[in-house]
Amino acid sequence: VVKWLIMRLRLPIACIALEVILIILFGVAVEYDHDVSGEAGHKTNTTHHDYENEFYYRYPSFQDVHVMIFIGFGFLMTFLQRYGFSSVGFNFLIAAFSLQLATLVQGFLHTIMTGGKIHVGVESMINADFCTGSVLISFGAVLGKTSPVQMLTMAVFEVILFSVNEFILLSLLNAKDAGGSMTIHTFGAYFGLMVTRVLYRPNLDKSNKKNSSVYHSDIFAMIGTLYLWMFWPSFNSAITLHGDIQHRTALNTYYSLAACTLSTYAFSALLNHEGKLDMVHIQNAALAGGVALGTAAEMMITPFGSMIVGFLAGAISVLGYRFITPFLESKLKIQDTCGVHNLHGMPGILGAIVGAITSLAATKEHYGNGLTAVFPKITSDFPASAQAGMQAISLVVTLGIALIGGIIVGFILKLPIYGAPSDSQCFEDGVYWEVYLPNCMCTNLPAFIHRVYTQK
Amino acid sequence: VVKWLIMRLRLPIACIALEVILIILFGVAVEYDHDVSGEAGHKTNTTHHDYENEFYYRYPSFQDVHVMIFIGFGFLMTFLQRYGFSSVGFNFLIAAFSLQLATLVQGFLHTIMTGGKIHVGVESMINADFCTGSVLISFGAVLGKTSPVQMLTMAVFEVILFSVNEFILLSLLNAKDAGGSMTIHTFGAYFGLMVTRVLYRPNLDKSNKKNSSVYHSDIFAMIGTLYLWMFWPSFNSAITLHGDIQHRTALNTYYSLAACTLSTYAFSALLNHEGKLDMVHIQNAALAGGVALGTAAEMMITPFGSMIVGFLAGAISVLGYRFITPFLESKLKIQDTCGVHNLHGMPGILGAIVGAITSLAATKEHYGNGLTAVFPKITSDFPASAQAGMQAISLVVTLGIALIGGIIVGFILKLPIYGAPSDSQCFEDGVYWEVYLPNCMCTNLPAFIHRVYTQK
Amino acid sequence: VVKWLIMRLRLPIACIALEVILIILFGVAVEYDHDVSGEAGHKTNTTHHDYENEFYYRYPSFQDVHVMIFIGFGFLMTFLQRYGFSSVGFNFLIAAFSLQLATLVQGFLHTIMTGGKIHVGVESMINADFCTGSVLISFGAVLGKTSPVQMLTMAVFEVILFSVNEFILLSLLNAKDAGGSMTIHTFGAYFGLMVTRVLYRPNLDKSNKKNSSVYHSDIFAMIGTLYLWMFWPSFNSAITLHGDIQHRTALNTYYSLAACTLSTYAFSALLNHEGKLDMVHIQNAALAGGVALGTAAEMMITPFGSMIVGFLAGAISVLGYRFITPFLESKLKIQDTCGVHNLHGMPGILGAIVGAITSLAATKEHYGNGLTAVFPKITSDFPASAQAGMQAISLVVTLGIALIGGIIVGFILKLPIYGAPSDSQCFEDGVYWEVYLPNCMCTNLPAFIHRVYTQK
Repeated sequence: VVKWLIMRLRLPIACIALEVILIILFGVAVEYDHDVSGEAGHKTNTTHHDYENEFYYRYPSFQDVHVMIFIGFGFLMTFLQRYGFSSVGFNFLIAAFSLQLATLVQGFLHTIMTGGKIHVGVESMINADFCTGSVLISFGAVLGKTSPVQMLTMAVFEVILFSVNEFILLSLLNAKDAGGSMTIHTFGAYFGLMVTRVLYRPNLDKSNKKNSSVYHSDIFAMIGTLYLWMFWPSFNSAITLHGDIQHRTALNTYYSLAACTLSTYAFSALLNHEGKLDMVHIQNAALAGGVALGTAAEMMITPFGSMIVGFLAGAISVLGYRFITPFLESKLKIQDTCGVHNLHGMPGILGAIVGAITSLAATKEHYGNGLTAVFPKITSDFPASAQAGMQAISLVVTLGIALIGGIIVGFILKLPIYGAPSDSQCFEDGVYWEVYLPNCMCTNLPAFIHRVYTQK
Repeated sequence: VVKWLIMRLRLPIACIALEVILIILFGVAVEYDHDVSGEAGHKTNTTHHDYENEFYYRYPSFQDVHVMIFIGFGFLMTFLQRYGFSSVGFNFLIAAFSLQLATLVQGFLHTIMTGGKIHVGVESMINADFCTGSVLISFGAVLGKTSPVQMLTMAVFEVILFSVNEFILLSLLNAKDAGGSMTIHTFGAYFGLMVTRVLYRPNLDKSNKKNSSVYHSDIFAMIGTLYLWMFWPSFNSAITLHGDIQHRTALNTYYSLAACTLSTYAFSALLNHEGKLDMVHIQNAALAGGVALGTAAEMMITPFGSMIVGFLAGAISVLGYRFITPFLESKLKIQDTCGVHNLHGMPGILGAIVGAITSLAATKEHYGNGLTAVFPKITSDFPASAQAGMQAISLVVTLGIALIGGIIVGFILKLPIYGAPSDSQCFEDGVYWEVYLPNCMCTNLPAFIHRVYTQK
Repeated sequence: VVKWLIMRLRLPIACIALEVILIILFGVAVEYDHDVSGEAGHKTNTTHHDYENEFYYRYPSFQDVHVMIFIGFGFLMTFLQRYGFSSVGFNFLIAAFSLQLATLVQGFLHTIMTGGKIHVGVESMINADFCTGSVLISFGAVLGKTSPVQMLTMAVFEVILFSVNEFILLSLLNAKDAGGSMTIHTFGAYFGLMVTRVLYRPNLDKSNKKNSSVYHSDIFAMIGTLYLWMFWPSFNSAITLHGDIQHRTALNTYYSLAACTLSTYAFSALLNHEGKLDMVHIQNAALAGGVALGTAAEMMITPFGSMIVGFLAGAISVLGYRFITPFLESKLKIQDTCGVHNLHGMPGILGAIVGAITSLAATKEHYGNGLTAVFPKITSDFPASAQAGMQAISLVVTLGIALIGGIIVGFILKLPIYGAPSDSQCFEDGVYWEVYLPNCMCTNLPAFIHRVYTQK
């Protein structure tokens, strides 16, 4: 009875305890930003116009990012045939939790420099969604093999480590990473890969049949893919400086994604023995162009450069699904459910390298008076090559924190207190959800029909 | 033959007649607002810049609201297994009709004060969508049990009553209700509950099996849920004043929803005898945090306060689904298909109370010079407590008009002239739609297989 | 073996070759627009504020248009029961390709007048998406009967012809067509109809059963429909002048669509022998109101006029599905899979005529000082009637280029080098995609069950 009670109460207690702690911390430490409380408009600055409120510069981008987090990531993972409720439902739960915690942790690190309370507004909303994105990338690696309490626990640690890494990169190393090739994608992917490595399940093959798609679930997943693809320009440009920089970031990302799509279709058909396209590639690799421009999109990389990067990212990603994922699983015991290594890991590293290389051209000649806006640290004493060096160091730091952090958190998640599913319960909604009717009969139809017919 | 003709022609005649009347009234009474006709920019005011056009302040919010109305409400109701065409299709029809009528009725009431023609622009578009939202809430209560002509008739009366109630609250009582906790949610829910009470079908249990979901229909419904959840900050802030107020409204709503999501998951699992989550709760209760902040979101409620409200709203809503809905059905004979009492009714009342309480703190100390912007009526003669009193009176007025109006309209809809479906036709697309192929075989598979197999 | 290699390599080679050519041309000919490179803000103009950057005027509209192209068109075509992967997947491929090529061709024609390099920014992004929309309309006509390489080839020619026609209309004839009734809809529809005429398949009836929907595929298609419907106001207003004109264009389109929806429901039920609604009509004809206002929406057509046009467009479109599509197929041998003639063809022509008539009222009396903004060419020497004449000539030119161009391109696509599907492979994902599991058993269930059962 006690065991049954614990099983029943684990998730409710975790959710209520975490939310109560969040509420208390928000009560203690958080206040409205100037643009939110009205101090900017009504007290200090008499020439401040409504249309200069940060809200109008960023809220449409925020909403696009929000759609990517909840619809994009959520539906991308519905490709599994019997795990749709969990994919979209746990994505929802983890994201709603992570964005609150991220607001606190990112805000706290920010106030270390400035002092005072944590300020919230549309910028903190975007930054919190970015951190959440990283958690959801790791979620993609462990999808189907972890309990919701396990994932909430992972989110707690990952939000903290993400924020520390982001703080080191952006505030200490002065790296540029507006779209998060390093902070979001590389970090989230390698962190998640280490977690799933530690949680390795050698006998998962048995239920492996469920670790695949059915026809309709693949079309649901395309909803996720397309929203991620369409709104990635908003993602990369959401927290850049106003004006031409935001404009340029969106434009570069758009071209990278378009080129990436063509290379994804090309390589998907090329690597198939019948020349057919594979939905897994289309759903994922076509997005690698956005990941790979996460660092460089705000720079003067030109549409030409963006398209080359996008083309390479798509190719690398498809090749990863075809050759590296099976290798990771069989040799390194890394079971990467969604293939986040191909969509976020390798393209993230590519993006970091592209960012470092593009920084080398950070000169007055290319940027004019806009140079300081993009690279505020570059002066005669700190040349473009130094910036490029900082970008490279940032990648190494990110990989280090992600890999070590992922292993440690993996072992924490291995403790037998989270109600992790057994091997046969993996990739199965029924463990955590009330599922009505036999799932549109999409799986085990033969057995189902037999049962039904012989009952007659 | 006559009966057959009437049955065939009822919907076409209703649609054509209503649309022709609308067109004539628009021709007589409607003209462009200043910002639409260009008078503002080109005639009167030489210092008016393009970027000050109301369009740029409000159109992105309008589109988010529009998505909530057509995709959000439409897909939220596709959870029924055999009623997907009707859910999304009748939602579309009723919304397209209601927004036109609402423009006229709201505009007419507005011109009572100012005189002149009805002005249309992005603000009238948002207000019309808001009124439409209220109609769709009532639609959720009667879903599956009414004919399209019945629903169009309901919409005619509800748009008028909604607009009268809104006019009393906002223009006569000077209540604040930007996100419509009272005007939209409380009104729509209790109006709809009374209609479905009057239309009570004692023998509905027979076809009750169809009044439930299947696997894929629940995933479709999550599309609706997530769009409502993501865009609720835009909904509550769509018609607030520009600048920091709009910014604050969106921010508060966002925190309320995040906290509400965690409490929804907690209570859904807590109340299930196996500790499993229930899709109905996730789809609906997670949205209660937006409803419950519809009045107070523009006030200085702080993220802390918003999260407490959201947490309570989620809990109340899940408890409602678990305990109050069955009670309403068995004792009060209220058959509430979508559980609008839990998502809109109780959280709406909570929102009205929260708004009244928060108004008590409407002082210079908390709002600075922004006080007048949020509470234009508050002066030394009309203190915050008076405002709070007006808020409380507004709730009572709303409940009164909704309950009495709903009963009267319910009896009007009971007249045997609308082609209402028989009990066995409830929750069934085939009555109103051409349905090809046996519905992906999702229901009655045993019988279907038997038929198929014995045909061989 | 050679044949097998060609079959396997056709799509990869086409994609890689096209993308490499695009990248090279972008490298040679494209540069950032002023608002993108930062020249505007940082060099030339010291009074230029960030909020005046074109990005903030147009990016939200661009994103709405982008959603229409990828989700709207993509999901609208998923109604086919076994062609969901191809509908949404090839839509994705062709759109990603077309928007790159369109940027080049439209930009090149623009520089003929001004000289210099092709400038890219948010306006070029919108214009490229518009051209892509036209290609996707033609795609709808040939859907299910062409190979991806065939469609890419069609896109190459159609982008060029579209851009030439657009250049003649907007730059040489000074026609107004902001939402593309002529340039996008009429052109795309009649071009596609001619292509499908030349590619006529007399024996397609055999597999015709697959050329229809199933229950869930119709609900997926409604996602496409609703996004197109909701965002059409953004589409028509995306490249109009700032301020009141953009505001008015969105408003007029919104009313036209609302009226169109009611007439669609009315005529759909009216023409059905049981008075039932037909999903095909709802999915398509309800959008005709947006098409029919593509030319006139920016003019002073008033909500009254917009609603009349929308009402007519819906009626014409439903009548087209009921009477004209069967006629085109049986008598003219035009197999129009999605019925683009009813959604884009006839409503496009209606829109062109409405635009010409509305131009007749282009006087100071109706437009005030805003006249020049909408009709820059109108002077005492070039009266409103001359503008109306130019609008009419534009329709004739568009039809001419579309019809002749479509026939020529149709014959190019008839060459036996594209791997076109055989008649029995039409409307079938399995030819081009890895399809796992038996498609949710939605088709051929009897045979499937028999096979399954007898295996036991």
